[in-house]
Amino acid sequence: MIFDAHDAAGIRLARALAPRESGVPDAERYARAVWSHLAEPGESTAGALVAALGPIAALDAAADTGGLVDEMLEEGRRRWRPRLVHEPIARSLATAARRGIRLVVPGDPHWPSAVDDLGDHAPIALWTRGDPTALVELSPGVALVGARAATSYGEHTAAELAADLCGAGIAVVSGGAYGIDGAAHRAALGVGGMTVAVMAGGVDRTYPSGNTDLVERIVASGGAVIAEVPCGAAPTKWRFLQRNRLIAALADATVVVEAGWRSGSLNTAGHAASLGRPIGAVPGPITSAASAGTHRLLREYDAVCITGTDDVLELLGEAPRARVDAEAGPRVSEDTRVLDAMSVRTSRTVDDIARRSGHAPADVEARLGLLRLSGDVEPTESGWRRRPR
Amino acid sequence: MIFDAHDAAGIRLARALAPRESGVPDAERYARAVWSHLAEPGESTAGALVAALGPIAALDAAADTGGLVDEMLEEGRRRWRPRLVHEPIARSLATAARRGIRLVVPGDPHWPSAVDDLGDHAPIALWTRGDPTALVELSPGVALVGARAATSYGEHTAAELAADLCGAGIAVVSGGAYGIDGAAHRAALGVGGMTVAVMAGGVDRTYPSGNTDLVERIVASGGAVIAEVPCGAAPTKWRFLQRNRLIAALADATVVVEAGWRSGSLNTAGHAASLGRPIGAVPGPITSAASAGTHRLLREYDAVCITGTDDVLELLGEAPRARVDAEAGPRVSEDTRVLDAMSVRTSRTVDDIARRSGHAPADVEARLGLLRLSGDVEPTESGWRRRPR
Repeated sequence: MIFDAHDAAGIRLARALAPRESGVPDAERYARAVWSHLAEPGESTAGALVAALGPIAALDAAADTGGLVDEMLEEGRRRWRPRLVHEPIARSLATAARRGIRLVVPGDPHWPSAVDDLGDHAPIALWTRGDPTALVELSPGVALVGARAATSYGEHTAAELAADLCGAGIAVVSGGAYGIDGAAHRAALGVGGMTVAVMAGGVDRTYPSGNTDLVERIVASGGAVIAEVPCGAAPTKWRFLQRNRLIAALADATVVVEAGWRSGSLNTAGHAASLGRPIGAVPGPITSAASAGTHRLLREYDAVCITGTDDVLELLGEAPRARVDAEAGPRVSEDTRVLDAMSVRTSRTVDDIARRSGHAPADVEARLGLLRLSGDVEPTESGWRRRPR
Repeated sequence: MIFDAHDAAGIRLARALAPRESGVPDAERYARAVWSHLAEPGESTAGALVAALGPIAALDAAADTGGLVDEMLEEGRRRWRPRLVHEPIARSLATAARRGIRLVVPGDPHWPSAVDDLGDHAPIALWTRGDPTALVELSPGVALVGARAATSYGEHTAAELAADLCGAGIAVVSGGAYGIDGAAHRAALGVGGMTVAVMAGGVDRTYPSGNTDLVERIVASGGAVIAEVPCGAAPTKWRFLQRNRLIAALADATVVVEAGWRSGSLNTAGHAASLGRPIGAVPGPITSAASAGTHRLLREYDAVCITGTDDVLELLGEAPRARVDAEAGPRVSEDTRVLDAMSVRTSRTVDDIARRSGHAPADVEARLGLLRLSGDVEPTESGWRRRPR
């Protein structure tokens, strides 16, 4: 074997990756760091193996050629073996250590336990730039996601929601992309809120590079930029989709602000729904392709229609659902019928008002008395008149 | 009594109001014509009385001072008596006959039986300008309604939906108002479709007067303009709301295109929901007050989100619900991972691709074979390369 899971230099490197106040053994952190190089995000064979044996024994089993005989494991080994090479892993860990990147693992006080709801698809470890404490400050938290090709309407809405939510002490999780994601992160930073960006590639490389400045601001703000894949890993399409499951799992609810018909953010909403987390969608003009995906969520996925921050709070269960009137539309009482039958200019008799309104004369008289008290009508020499507003 | 339900001149006048091919006795039509003057639209005491006794005996009971002793009936009598005056009723009937207005009643082949679902609140008769046959051509039919203060987005959407629906042989019912209603009627007329306007006041007076031309075009087109209230009756607020129940009852489904938070069209949707008819709502920007009501329908009334004509057809059950993908978002297969790991410019070995993609080398080889057949990749001297799209 060219790889040794008990390599002392590697374990020493892993110690440098530990966030403060962690009691997780360095060897375990090292094993998880290696695993983050072997398995693609969300790979359930790796997840199940690590869950069953612990990361170190699982790594031994992955590196071993004999031992356990299991078809899934054998298939996994065939996938992992090409990546189980000492040198590139050591290099990636050294990069992380040098750049102050931390590896948060289960058992750390900073581990966001909400992701464990993903079961065998849960992340094995989270590479973290910024303050690892941010990871346990995501509840209450909302994923605000959406199209890269957003409209100014979408970006405006994302920014409004993010700023208001942060103002209410709610964290904003997103994907650090152009468009909706960027608008949400930026607005959160603008009000001093907590925001975390989940990347599809390594946290040492910012994708898209145009958002480098944004990422630095998130890190400086006390938020965090995280990824499952190690330093140097490319943000592939597959990893984008798996990244989306992590965004959904980190937040208490997912709101899609704008999305095309096949936008990746629908995938995020789908993951949230699978996890039983509430999903919301912001409507837009049906003539806007950038809202086709959110309308699809409303139609096909029973997403809640989000028209403002209050609706998101309601989605989180943070605020009581607004009291719904027994009947929508304008309020019209029997009094309306009496008022409708009257004129501001012309006095009318009680009998005339009764005929016009379809009320009994005695009834009209009683109602006129009450309407007079409220200042809506007044008696005249020849009958009754409506008072101008 | 100053009124006689068996007045021969009145019954003769009623004959002139009968649509062709009707077998309903003139005396019965006369009694219903009188009832349309006595009871406000939707009044259940009148509806129940007419349903129980038939219109003639019910009218006798209404005009009588003794006989049946019933609290509800007594209350009704007190409301109806001020209106039970021969001269104005005769004048209104004469106006209708002179202007070619017809009174369609239950038993006429033109009676739209869908309104009977309103029970005691069903209309007692329908005053009709235009072709009474239109009333039985409203199924399949959709109520397209919405705010008077519509935006150009709303009017555009209403027009698109109306034209497409008429093109599919579906009638458009609306309220003849400015804004959404007018846009829907006009677009229906523009494609030679069937459209019916339900008025809150008498059909001899057009409200709003600015839509006089529209009403004349509907009448000329083979459509109809109808009302429960007789000629000369004013369109009061109460009658607008009751008119809305009739729009909902005449159509198979109700779609609100644009509506403010307290728009009367929400009331129409509420009536449709009470009748168990499907309701749809067109979303718009959350920044537009003209869409606040439709978003409310989506949130609070479980209305279906309508993004185009296909969605309305689906609401009607006219088209099979579009097949929903098992998972929203972009389609990504295992092949994607292999393609992600390849380059258009650089050849890569199978082992390299395996390491980059997280697949086993044998698996990569098999997938490359298939991807070669589909023209996505090609072998080179030093390995494999992605082919440019």
